[in-house]
Amino acid sequence: MSSYDFVVIGSGPAGRRAAIQAAKLKKSVLVIDDRGSVGGVSVHTGTIPSKTLRESVLNLTGWRERQFYNRRSTDKAQSNCAALNSRLSKTLHHEVDVLEQQFARNNVHTLQGRAQFVDRHTLQVERHEADRTATELVTADRILVTVGTKPFRPDYVPFNDRTVLDSDAIVADLTIPRSLTVIGAGVIGIEYATIFSALDVPVTLIEPRDSFLDFVDREVISNFTQQLLDRGMSIRLGCSAESIVLDEMDCPVVTLNDGRVVRSEMLLFAAGRKGATDNIGLDKIALEADHRGRLTVNPDTMQTSVDNIYAAGDVIGFPSLASTSMEQGRIAACHAFDAPMPTAPHHFPYGIYAVPEISTIGYSEEQAREKGFVFECGIARLRETSRGHIMGLQSGILKCLFELETGKLLGVHAVGEGATELIHIGQAVLNLGGGIDFFMENTFNYPTLAEAYKIAALDAWNRMAPAKKGEVVKLKKPKSKSRKKAA
Amino acid sequence: MSSYDFVVIGSGPAGRRAAIQAAKLKKSVLVIDDRGSVGGVSVHTGTIPSKTLRESVLNLTGWRERQFYNRRSTDKAQSNCAALNSRLSKTLHHEVDVLEQQFARNNVHTLQGRAQFVDRHTLQVERHEADRTATELVTADRILVTVGTKPFRPDYVPFNDRTVLDSDAIVADLTIPRSLTVIGAGVIGIEYATIFSALDVPVTLIEPRDSFLDFVDREVISNFTQQLLDRGMSIRLGCSAESIVLDEMDCPVVTLNDGRVVRSEMLLFAAGRKGATDNIGLDKIALEADHRGRLTVNPDTMQTSVDNIYAAGDVIGFPSLASTSMEQGRIAACHAFDAPMPTAPHHFPYGIYAVPEISTIGYSEEQAREKGFVFECGIARLRETSRGHIMGLQSGILKCLFELETGKLLGVHAVGEGATELIHIGQAVLNLGGGIDFFMENTFNYPTLAEAYKIAALDAWNRMAPAKKGEVVKLKKPKSKSRKKAA
Repeated sequence: MSSYDFVVIGSGPAGRRAAIQAAKLKKSVLVIDDRGSVGGVSVHTGTIPSKTLRESVLNLTGWRERQFYNRRSTDKAQSNCAALNSRLSKTLHHEVDVLEQQFARNNVHTLQGRAQFVDRHTLQVERHEADRTATELVTADRILVTVGTKPFRPDYVPFNDRTVLDSDAIVADLTIPRSLTVIGAGVIGIEYATIFSALDVPVTLIEPRDSFLDFVDREVISNFTQQLLDRGMSIRLGCSAESIVLDEMDCPVVTLNDGRVVRSEMLLFAAGRKGATDNIGLDKIALEADHRGRLTVNPDTMQTSVDNIYAAGDVIGFPSLASTSMEQGRIAACHAFDAPMPTAPHHFPYGIYAVPEISTIGYSEEQAREKGFVFECGIARLRETSRGHIMGLQSGILKCLFELETGKLLGVHAVGEGATELIHIGQAVLNLGGGIDFFMENTFNYPTLAEAYKIAALDAWNRMAPAKKGEVVKLKKPKSKSRKKAA
Repeated sequence: MSSYDFVVIGSGPAGRRAAIQAAKLKKSVLVIDDRGSVGGVSVHTGTIPSKTLRESVLNLTGWRERQFYNRRSTDKAQSNCAALNSRLSKTLHHEVDVLEQQFARNNVHTLQGRAQFVDRHTLQVERHEADRTATELVTADRILVTVGTKPFRPDYVPFNDRTVLDSDAIVADLTIPRSLTVIGAGVIGIEYATIFSALDVPVTLIEPRDSFLDFVDREVISNFTQQLLDRGMSIRLGCSAESIVLDEMDCPVVTLNDGRVVRSEMLLFAAGRKGATDNIGLDKIALEADHRGRLTVNPDTMQTSVDNIYAAGDVIGFPSLASTSMEQGRIAACHAFDAPMPTAPHHFPYGIYAVPEISTIGYSEEQAREKGFVFECGIARLRETSRGHIMGLQSGILKCLFELETGKLLGVHAVGEGATELIHIGQAVLNLGGGIDFFMENTFNYPTLAEAYKIAALDAWNRMAPAKKGEVVKLKKPKSKSRKKAA
């Protein structure tokens, strides 16, 4: 029986970061993962594959320059499906290599197998080797659960992993259908729906609720939706699937609750994922997952109610981002071994890798109003920047919220090319307490998309100026309304 | 005779910004330009065309993804030369339209013609109309000279605007030569040399000095040079052209001072530009330009020695950036009409749109040492970021300098894809007084290139940690040396 200071179940972003952190604190560390190789959902079926697919699709189809050259995407992509799959596998293998090297360099041990709790310090690991199943016990001082999630697969969906797939299966062997139905307008559903739509595949997006991505500023979502409609995507909000059946050609046919029928060559079911906590023996340590398989932790320490057992990453729920999961892993490892805890800044960025990208940090207009801030908004259209002209951008906005009295930046919300990178300028200004003066006084490289910050700041400033001079700001409410209408 | 509060000679970035600023202060404004349309060198032969060419070349050749698909660039580009020229002209016309609208909206008058000083308040404008030349007088309370620069064309260079060109002529009617010689490794020479090299055109770069782009961090230049050599560019530093002649095919033949001979199908002479001040009647107002045609101003107010006459933009010399020129224009207009002066932050970014991009802000390692800072450097390779993997990046670095005692950011230096955008994150942290803690504590979107900041910060932190704990930092000097060797 082997014994470690720290055992991590799962090797996704949270597990990886925690393991390295504990190793740097000179602890003995073991990472257990039941996949053939390390990396978790992030590397194998989630973040990396979908982002690689996205990047490849944009490259191969000339999406970013379609304004100039009138290319049609599908033709190029169909013939390049092999190139897409090869690039996917190349990138994945590279990620796994890097990760394995990182573990080796830091003397982190790894074990392939399925881990189950025996008690709060002991795990039983089942290993499949060639033709037999071996079982071994591992003990640990502290244990971190970063088992991630798996797709939610309800019984009424006739999954066949060819024409009806979940989000794990879709990247396993990519094919480009003649038409696609996506059920679920969460982050995953939106990302795949828009990537396939960028390939000129007709896409129907079905979402039972009347809105989607509710944590994002409404004006940004409105602009985003408009872009999707403009390129012909069907968006059916407030519609649920009554039934899904396969026709004689194995094509899925969805009947909606309003009686309408949606046929397509492929269906992606992306209505949620659940924590992969079913078979890890939570009952042995008196822990219970919620109805979605998720664990509850103290957000300051990442401890579960069993004080030597921690959880981090997607298995604890929102925000379920690779970036925040890594930080959670670091916090868990630091707390477990009494290292100084990183102080987390108030705001973190959220990136949605759709086509176009969405990214957001700080308060949305709705949240700022709720919190009682008195503020003004400034908006820049990316096509107003010189780099936007050069790139031929037609759409995309950057929106900044500034507190009226202090000029402080309250939030930044962007949709369009490069949004996930651009947002970090706002993050620095926000978390360092800067405001509208920063954008007014600083010069930016010309031509860059970053100039959008300056344009947005000037836009806000033009409305804020009377207030600065001590006048009453009468125009605020109507202005904000009229902008919404226009969007 | 018409009369204005403010007359601006030239409509490039400095003139444009100054004119709009003065108009917003309710002044009557006239912009005089001798080109057929507004925009100056920036729009017509400089910034915008070269950046558009760069973007088009990268798009059409699949440069950004060559790692994955083994495309050869020249073949695609040759057949797309018409597409390149059409995109150039499309972008230019759009820029001119935007500018004209902006002038019209702000009630800025424009006049096409060549302006010459009569006295410190009067200009004579010569207009060519159809078949006759008209002359009119314009008076102004304040005058801003933003005439920009024109290429320096020494007698010994047999310019013919087809096979021997200056940097204005090269974008006028773009052709892709079988081979190219570039004389002068300044920003313009470097940009064109690397853009053509990205098209797989064999390029020889000739520079009389032993180094180039001396205001950029040496480690960044070393990485940049390595990338150029890797793709087969010949770089001849410390070599000057003894003679340039045309052979019987009109191909330029350059004989270097060491006797070597460089033949190519085309030659770009980019050894400097000079202020376009020759024929504007400086003698009438007792102003004198230096040997490069440049004017001297008070950098706080942009006034020349004649107090109602201002100068801004390329005509006053370094840094000669569109972005800083705009700020200079704004400062001039604000000072001219007693408006509150924008306070310029200490550091501004510098962007070089080569392939790959270079961008820099704050102190280089050399400058920081000169200023007596005690500091540590952190380096990230862009391929170490997940987005770098996904994009297939092989090269590029981001280097951060942190003050050892305070952890404050002193400078950021980057070479590689997206460097000109990435630098603004560093700019925000630098100008808002942030430091290494910001990068350690904040999470960034995953996958993004912005993660390079975190990687660089961690790299520095690993060497800074002993110092933080009060130990003597013995390793600093040797470390820095060994890194230089490796680069």
